[in-house]
Amino acid sequence: MTHVPTGIRRNVVLRRRPSGEPSPHDFEVVEDAIPTPGPGEVLTRTIWLSVDPYMRGRLTDRKSYAAPVQIGEVMTGESIGEVMASGDPAFKPGDVVLGSRGWQSHSLSQATALTKLDPGAAPLSAYLGVLGMPGTTAYSGMKDIGQPKAGETVVISAASGAVGSVAGQIAKRAGARVVGVAGGPDKCLWVQETLGFDDCVDHRSPYLADALAEACPNGIDVYFENVGGAVQEAVIPLLNPFARVVMCGMVAQYNEREFPPGPNLGFVVGKRVRIEGLIVSDKPERFAEWRALAAPWVADGSLHYRETVIDGLESAPEALALLLRGGNFGKMLVRVGADPA
Amino acid sequence: MTHVPTGIRRNVVLRRRPSGEPSPHDFEVVEDAIPTPGPGEVLTRTIWLSVDPYMRGRLTDRKSYAAPVQIGEVMTGESIGEVMASGDPAFKPGDVVLGSRGWQSHSLSQATALTKLDPGAAPLSAYLGVLGMPGTTAYSGMKDIGQPKAGETVVISAASGAVGSVAGQIAKRAGARVVGVAGGPDKCLWVQETLGFDDCVDHRSPYLADALAEACPNGIDVYFENVGGAVQEAVIPLLNPFARVVMCGMVAQYNEREFPPGPNLGFVVGKRVRIEGLIVSDKPERFAEWRALAAPWVADGSLHYRETVIDGLESAPEALALLLRGGNFGKMLVRVGADPA
Repeated sequence: MTHVPTGIRRNVVLRRRPSGEPSPHDFEVVEDAIPTPGPGEVLTRTIWLSVDPYMRGRLTDRKSYAAPVQIGEVMTGESIGEVMASGDPAFKPGDVVLGSRGWQSHSLSQATALTKLDPGAAPLSAYLGVLGMPGTTAYSGMKDIGQPKAGETVVISAASGAVGSVAGQIAKRAGARVVGVAGGPDKCLWVQETLGFDDCVDHRSPYLADALAEACPNGIDVYFENVGGAVQEAVIPLLNPFARVVMCGMVAQYNEREFPPGPNLGFVVGKRVRIEGLIVSDKPERFAEWRALAAPWVADGSLHYRETVIDGLESAPEALALLLRGGNFGKMLVRVGADPA
Repeated sequence: MTHVPTGIRRNVVLRRRPSGEPSPHDFEVVEDAIPTPGPGEVLTRTIWLSVDPYMRGRLTDRKSYAAPVQIGEVMTGESIGEVMASGDPAFKPGDVVLGSRGWQSHSLSQATALTKLDPGAAPLSAYLGVLGMPGTTAYSGMKDIGQPKAGETVVISAASGAVGSVAGQIAKRAGARVVGVAGGPDKCLWVQETLGFDDCVDHRSPYLADALAEACPNGIDVYFENVGGAVQEAVIPLLNPFARVVMCGMVAQYNEREFPPGPNLGFVVGKRVRIEGLIVSDKPERFAEWRALAAPWVADGSLHYRETVIDGLESAPEALALLLRGGNFGKMLVRVGADPA
């Protein structure tokens, strides 16, 4: 056992379940003592917190694929940290690790639940975005469900987001015509100019359906669904026979108390559409596959990404609220501590 | 060329597009001369006409996977006939053939579009039902999409119909728990007692959702969708993670002018559901596969089916209307002529 630091730990815990958009008042900061790792455990200080749309589901006591966070519990999430003390020979102080921990200044983890990162290979924050869970989600969605082919038309909603930006770049590499849907001219410009999508449509336009139809003159073969709502409504009439719909998320409704009705499913029969849901953790092998594939593309600058960084653990609830109303531009992150020296 | 019969042919043609439920007045009988087959053509007299839910779509001028029947055109459909004259050496008078022809007393077909049947192997009408298009639809739906495994729960709507009755029996052979949904106590009794489903729920019950939940204590892993509407609504909350939904048809809405909204698709993400549309003709190889597999089961009496037979070509429009309101019990057929001597 190495030297164990002492002091105060800060934890962001759920105070009450949000109704609609989550507010900072739904959370509170609770302090306790920095814990001491036992055998097989590792203590880390948090450097980066990931903030992701799925987190809204954890705040609601509704039956889902993962249990909700309970009142008084630390909010869950992926983070990157530096090892401060280790009860496991596989980790030593100074190591940088990735894991599902939570909104805390310091975390105690099972060593088996941590992945050691190479801090020289890519900026650390990339392991929470383009090389991490969102990037892997895009990869698995395209590999396991979307399967875009050269010449097909692929539409990506939330195209400038952490998942959408990668999904579209994967489809471009497959030779597809890729059309993004994003919120506002700045995001649309970046999606076209930097990410290299063939077109991008602003979902705030009152002419969304017409604009999308114009951007997809040969219909839509793959739709990567991140948002639901009006974008989904505009996409469905344009789907081609044998289209694949990757159901990754529907962030447009995550703050809704009641979900609105959806599309009449008659089109699924006539067009032989395949609609399939995706939770990235179902295929854990995709994480390492994607990191190996994409790390060189990040290193050579050919895989583009963008981040919105908010400073301070206490700002995490605000960062989540901002993300859920589309106020981020690219991957949403909270910087909790400095990168290792 | 063999002796060519002469005389009058009767054809049921579309007079006007039905609004809502099709009526006999939407069709009319038009007579012309029995045609003479040219080289490569075959003349048949019709014995059996198949009447199927998909036909409602052919009456509507709405973009679909197949072109609609035009006003003044003979209504399309599968039929079984006896060869009367042949311009192709592969067929001779007296042969019994299956093909997509239409609502006619006599049809002229390309020889390449006909399948010769063995009249001794099974009752001829079986080739339009359990061994034909509906049976193959059930087979393809289960093989290519549903893939029921032993111990899983499979729900079949329109369970006593030509497709549903076969789909459920296939799932039983795979070792699944099979629950039917059918209209009325007689159909439910037959589904349980004769087809051997584990349970059957009456969709006319005001407690459909509760009854279905009770019949599926372990949730639903495969749903074979033939009807849509209230049954679909009752099924969705019961779907298990990784459930498959075979979208074969939604007959409950085929007579509707406007399709009602459907389910919010959020469940597809959280439960990783796969929803996929099926048109049997997309995989033509399944027809012969299924015939080879199922003919012995029909012969040994282990694959059960039931037919509703209406007599006379002129009754075909009425048979279709009856089918669309669930007035059939099993495969709907029109007997146009006698079986060959």
